[in-house]
Amino acid sequence: VKRLADLGERAAIRRIATLLTKGNNTLGIGDDCAAIDLGKTYLLATTDMMFQRTHIPPQMTPYQMGWFLVAMNLSDIAAKGGHPLGIVCSYGLPKKTTESFLKELTKGADACAVCFGTTIVGGDTKETIEITLCATAFGTVKKDEFIARNGARPGDVVAVTGTLGKAGAGYYALKHHWNEKKLSNAFLEPQPRLKEGRLLAQQRVVTSSMDLSDGLSASLYQLQEINTVGFEIRRDTLPLASESVTLSRSHHAIDPYALALHFGGDYELLVTVPPKKFERVQNTLKRHGASLTAIGTVTKKTDIVLLEKGTRTALENKGYEHFKSHWF
Amino acid sequence: VKRLADLGERAAIRRIATLLTKGNNTLGIGDDCAAIDLGKTYLLATTDMMFQRTHIPPQMTPYQMGWFLVAMNLSDIAAKGGHPLGIVCSYGLPKKTTESFLKELTKGADACAVCFGTTIVGGDTKETIEITLCATAFGTVKKDEFIARNGARPGDVVAVTGTLGKAGAGYYALKHHWNEKKLSNAFLEPQPRLKEGRLLAQQRVVTSSMDLSDGLSASLYQLQEINTVGFEIRRDTLPLASESVTLSRSHHAIDPYALALHFGGDYELLVTVPPKKFERVQNTLKRHGASLTAIGTVTKKTDIVLLEKGTRTALENKGYEHFKSHWF
Repeated sequence: VKRLADLGERAAIRRIATLLTKGNNTLGIGDDCAAIDLGKTYLLATTDMMFQRTHIPPQMTPYQMGWFLVAMNLSDIAAKGGHPLGIVCSYGLPKKTTESFLKELTKGADACAVCFGTTIVGGDTKETIEITLCATAFGTVKKDEFIARNGARPGDVVAVTGTLGKAGAGYYALKHHWNEKKLSNAFLEPQPRLKEGRLLAQQRVVTSSMDLSDGLSASLYQLQEINTVGFEIRRDTLPLASESVTLSRSHHAIDPYALALHFGGDYELLVTVPPKKFERVQNTLKRHGASLTAIGTVTKKTDIVLLEKGTRTALENKGYEHFKSHWF
Repeated sequence: VKRLADLGERAAIRRIATLLTKGNNTLGIGDDCAAIDLGKTYLLATTDMMFQRTHIPPQMTPYQMGWFLVAMNLSDIAAKGGHPLGIVCSYGLPKKTTESFLKELTKGADACAVCFGTTIVGGDTKETIEITLCATAFGTVKKDEFIARNGARPGDVVAVTGTLGKAGAGYYALKHHWNEKKLSNAFLEPQPRLKEGRLLAQQRVVTSSMDLSDGLSASLYQLQEINTVGFEIRRDTLPLASESVTLSRSHHAIDPYALALHFGGDYELLVTVPPKKFERVQNTLKRHGASLTAIGTVTKKTDIVLLEKGTRTALENKGYEHFKSHWF
């Protein structure tokens, strides 16, 4: 008998997708968001769950749990170029949960929503054994601004917003009990890239996009599968987070490149853009105080290759996947 | 320290509501659905969770879990008069879950969605300790057809769709291992009243509405609180489910009136309608093969009274509430 532990999360989602009746008003399953046809716009909807044992480090405060829950959902709206419209939050909480925990959890969720221009519009609260948090975010995007996952073409520039490895540095700081609030906050209170997503969408040149919640290597493997293309990633162009570089100077076991390539939780956007349009897009983001860095090229050959000082090595898929592995 | 076990689910939701920033495009928290202003229509969104220990009877098949998850969310769309647009489903499943469980769960969710004119548009699958199912349903309703919870006026007729006590009869059949598939299906595979909700909405005369997921008495107590009104319910007018009447003949411990008044899970709609308009509304539903039964009157005095052969007794609130009690 095949069990989910053997199958893995992504294979499970693929099985589910083959069983579902396809709506005539929706784009397919397998993107960051569902997109439902509303005439001139798509209604975007995305849902994500967090469980105490597998997603919540012991140091995470209830406020940060609420923030994280909302941030990870808004990040999927950002990846599609959407405007957020609202979020519903469901809390499954043990009987012994205190009222102040509930208050802080709610304040964190509310603060993240408001910080990114939206609100919590509803939810549900039930009793359960372990803390279980589920949120669904909605948004809209004009049809001609929607950015799918499946339009990457050989020759396109591969690029990421912001820097990579912040969350990884924060994870190590937490794990080793280094009391560095700024570091751990990058991991526990991520910033969804809604502004960047809108700027990218408005320019209508992004051929594919997804968020980096699972880490760069895992995300590239997902884009590879959906687009039947490969990637050449130039190691020296990776926009390393200053936090992880600083940390690696005092802690030599930490490799900022490994954090940038494989660690999830940065919630930056990974996009592909035709080479002729890239500079304009990059400049537009820069003018708005955001950044977009070219890190490689889409290739026809379906390998994922890391280029380093003239040598080519296969980039391994070391990203996070449930059912098969845990971080905490 | 106050804990959720002392507070109860509804009080917890009230605390949450006071902490949230109110969006300028949304109606308030506390209704079956969030309603987000999209111009001429409201986007309706509602979310509900199920947990193995507290919501899933051991006899429930994976197919029925999927059906139930979708049905209870669609019921909230029905209560607001909405058209369903799509549903996202999140599954938290133990590692040892089999692939065939996942398939059956998905088939049940898909079947319920398709049966009521919509589809599953996305979701999430994660690993957890106990089976945890969370779904969010979306819909739309024209602004002038939206039915709120808070417009009940003294003198309005109180009415319910369909019959009451089906789910209760099914629960007893399951509990006592009576092998009556038809009975238990009323409990395990509820039918959301989307057709009835649309017919009621189109007539623009319903002053308040909610679904009966928590049972009639609990729902009346919720409407009482929101509307600052009372109710007189005439016991002999309750549309008893034939299933519970039949069952009570052979099992004298079963009181079909108690099941109709207090047992949750029927997923009928509870509405209030001005008396002059009631007959027309009732006839319209009848013409479409649905039923609406007057069971009492909205009163200015904020008591909830049960009238039986000339005697008036206070109707107790015996409905289901989490954190404080369990059914299973």
